[in-house]
Amino acid sequence: MARYKLLIEYDGGPYNGFQAQAGQPSVQGSLERAVAGFCGETVRVHAAGRTDSGVHATGQVVHFETEKPWPAETVRNAVNAHLRAEPIVVLDSWLAEDDFHARFSAKGRRYLYRILNRPAPPALERGKVWHVKNPLDAEAMHAAAQRLVGKHDFTTFRSTECQAKSPDKTLDRLDVSRAGDEIHVTAVARSFLHNQVRSMVGSLEVVGNGKWQAADLARALAARDRSACGPVAPPEGLYLVRVDY
Amino acid sequence: MARYKLLIEYDGGPYNGFQAQAGQPSVQGSLERAVAGFCGETVRVHAAGRTDSGVHATGQVVHFETEKPWPAETVRNAVNAHLRAEPIVVLDSWLAEDDFHARFSAKGRRYLYRILNRPAPPALERGKVWHVKNPLDAEAMHAAAQRLVGKHDFTTFRSTECQAKSPDKTLDRLDVSRAGDEIHVTAVARSFLHNQVRSMVGSLEVVGNGKWQAADLARALAARDRSACGPVAPPEGLYLVRVDY
Repeated sequence: MARYKLLIEYDGGPYNGFQAQAGQPSVQGSLERAVAGFCGETVRVHAAGRTDSGVHATGQVVHFETEKPWPAETVRNAVNAHLRAEPIVVLDSWLAEDDFHARFSAKGRRYLYRILNRPAPPALERGKVWHVKNPLDAEAMHAAAQRLVGKHDFTTFRSTECQAKSPDKTLDRLDVSRAGDEIHVTAVARSFLHNQVRSMVGSLEVVGNGKWQAADLARALAARDRSACGPVAPPEGLYLVRVDY
Repeated sequence: MARYKLLIEYDGGPYNGFQAQAGQPSVQGSLERAVAGFCGETVRVHAAGRTDSGVHATGQVVHFETEKPWPAETVRNAVNAHLRAEPIVVLDSWLAEDDFHARFSAKGRRYLYRILNRPAPPALERGKVWHVKNPLDAEAMHAAAQRLVGKHDFTTFRSTECQAKSPDKTLDRLDVSRAGDEIHVTAVARSFLHNQVRSMVGSLEVVGNGKWQAADLARALAARDRSACGPVAPPEGLYLVRVDY
């Protein structure tokens, strides 16, 4: 047996999320087919973050095991060769310890959310950003975001379908900055609830367009009520950029 | 009559270049159809740079005239509405002087060339970068590039199909820098010969991979011979980013 850790980049647009579901294209399904294609083994691929439909990754981490051992570099090249027709690539690969688990060993996750903030829709970044026409105040968004940092009950910012046992999470960082026509939101935590980043970004957008003040965001958090959340930001602006172990 | 100046962004991937050719998709053809769609007039759209097939733009400038005058903002919004299904957008629009010409009034053009320099192919930036696997020395590329700056006979770096009367051009800047996994080449001049940027980038890549020294690039320039050029870089990494008037 050999266990591999892979660093993965993908365009989430064509996939119905990371997780394999019967009859739906998934990143997991494509990776498992690619592994089977190169070594003939049926494996289960586990990910650090089970990204939703349309969500991208530049730094997803996965692991799997094969009966027959291969050099890590062979795995990277062979999986990439089998994925040539798809927007999924293995950036790097390592042999991992037997007890390494992409999801359960992770100590931190970092997401980036990209908002294209200009009157014209995207031509080059279609499906890669959330297009918001009206000017957003990134400084007001950043100041308000600090109300969410720390350990809180994030029920307001959690999908009703979230399966986590507890709504308590510690948000280490939530930074908002402007880069030209784009607004970038960076969120860092040990782990996130389902839809948490998109829920926080959607509410920050309401702050950015002036309809909410920082105090409204703090009140939404304190309400611990899903209906107090702003509109959830769409998946196409979200990227899993880094996982720490 | 009213003349409009438009700032345009497009993904060149689906188009057979800017210029309209019978039976081929072109940026010009799509823009002219969009103008006809909103005001019913058949117009000719002129561009600052007639980008080749697959070349992108974040700052292309075009002009055209309509018999009936419209507010510039109406033109921007109406053309964008008619281009909704295509990766072409109008970023901004202005009423222009009668003697303004997108191509002939231009005093400077700036191109960006993006090389993705890592072992793995692009997943998110497919068709938007040139993928070069082997590590390139960006500092050596930048130093060599300075041999091309200034007024020269650029016959070596000019397509055999180039229709310019003279091969003499003044290159104001040719900068190479690394940004993470990407190498960016910025080229600035009043105007360029056909395929000049892609020819220079292709030759700089040969410097970056160590097969050429700066002196080899200078010799290629001095040869004034198309066959002395390195391989021409592919179109998908090239962006027209700015036109000055």
